[in-house]
Amino acid sequence: MAEPLNLVLFSGTDDKLQAAAVLTAGAAALGKPVNIFLQYWALDAFRADRITKDHGVSPEAGEAGEAAMRHQGKTHWSELLRQAKELGEVHVYACADSMEMFEITKDDLDPMVDGIWGVASFFMEAEGPVTFI
Amino acid sequence: MAEPLNLVLFSGTDDKLQAAAVLTAGAAALGKPVNIFLQYWALDAFRADRITKDHGVSPEAGEAGEAAMRHQGKTHWSELLRQAKELGEVHVYACADSMEMFEITKDDLDPMVDGIWGVASFFMEAEGPVTFI
Amino acid sequence: MAEPLNLVLFSGTDDKLQAAAVLTAGAAALGKPVNIFLQYWALDAFRADRITKDHGVSPEAGEAGEAAMRHQGKTHWSELLRQAKELGEVHVYACADSMEMFEITKDDLDPMVDGIWGVASFFMEAEGPVTFI
Repeated sequence: MAEPLNLVLFSGTDDKLQAAAVLTAGAAALGKPVNIFLQYWALDAFRADRITKDHGVSPEAGEAGEAAMRHQGKTHWSELLRQAKELGEVHVYACADSMEMFEITKDDLDPMVDGIWGVASFFMEAEGPVTFI
Repeated sequence: MAEPLNLVLFSGTDDKLQAAAVLTAGAAALGKPVNIFLQYWALDAFRADRITKDHGVSPEAGEAGEAAMRHQGKTHWSELLRQAKELGEVHVYACADSMEMFEITKDDLDPMVDGIWGVASFFMEAEGPVTFI
Repeated sequence: MAEPLNLVLFSGTDDKLQAAAVLTAGAAALGKPVNIFLQYWALDAFRADRITKDHGVSPEAGEAGEAAMRHQGKTHWSELLRQAKELGEVHVYACADSMEMFEITKDDLDPMVDGIWGVASFFMEAEGPVTFI
């Protein structure tokens, strides 16, 4: 079986989430399982009521960079992830600690989130190396 | 033996350091060796005279995000790392280049730092993939 | 053969690019192949007309941190990467999507960029885990 791509998503800006979605879609297209663990600001961006809203970009983008990014008219990262889930073996888990921090429950999250896990469970399921974004 | 978790800690904000400590504690609890390499702003945050001070958060956190994080009353990341070191096989090294950049010596660092290494030594000891935070 | 270091470079600030160059040089010195994939703001920083210009630093650096970094008088990250390419097996690819976003062509990039790839091609060539910076 292809080696999995294990992503810990920490950042919640649209540029990093877009980059994460592109890596996920590329991996899924190659038949690699993808395990995504949502923490902190990335988890916040997956709330059902705001997932497609503007989450800002990294400060370094600058105005010209952000304009170039928004102008490209790409598929939104959340839609790209949804497509990758249909195409391949992509799992999305919310970090239990971060859920508690935001005082939210699974109902507050986009339906593409499969469940809530502690970090040890994530490490057990997502064996192998971790990419932090 | 379980595959190690090799962390290059670059960022020195409290949210990223907390995330790194949570991953370290989870890995150590599962018996995975953890090798941490402190560079740049993360190394600065490990100075003995400021390790528990406020190191700020990522700009994207916003006021509400930072308030949620500070409010959760979690164990400080430095204490979580200390516990992980007692529990498992966790090693913390300072990057020699970054030490020189800040013009500091090992005495300036928190005692949980085990030693000072160059990047090649880190790669030799911490065989396998690297997670950059 | 030594396990490769696969770097997805997303960030384009001088501190992160310096850290990436140091990891690359260390890996190359140990005989590890290094595959670098340039996306977003990191790709922007590799434009021929601005690669050695000031790309800023992470906001958390602060004035003192940036001064310490600039003061160290280290080899510029672009020169360090160039040396690593001469020393070892280091490949640098630009992300096709990001090229389109900035509306640039290979001629706009520093000559150390070897080619333009999609993310799936990168995953096929750079087998194994990915470090995201």
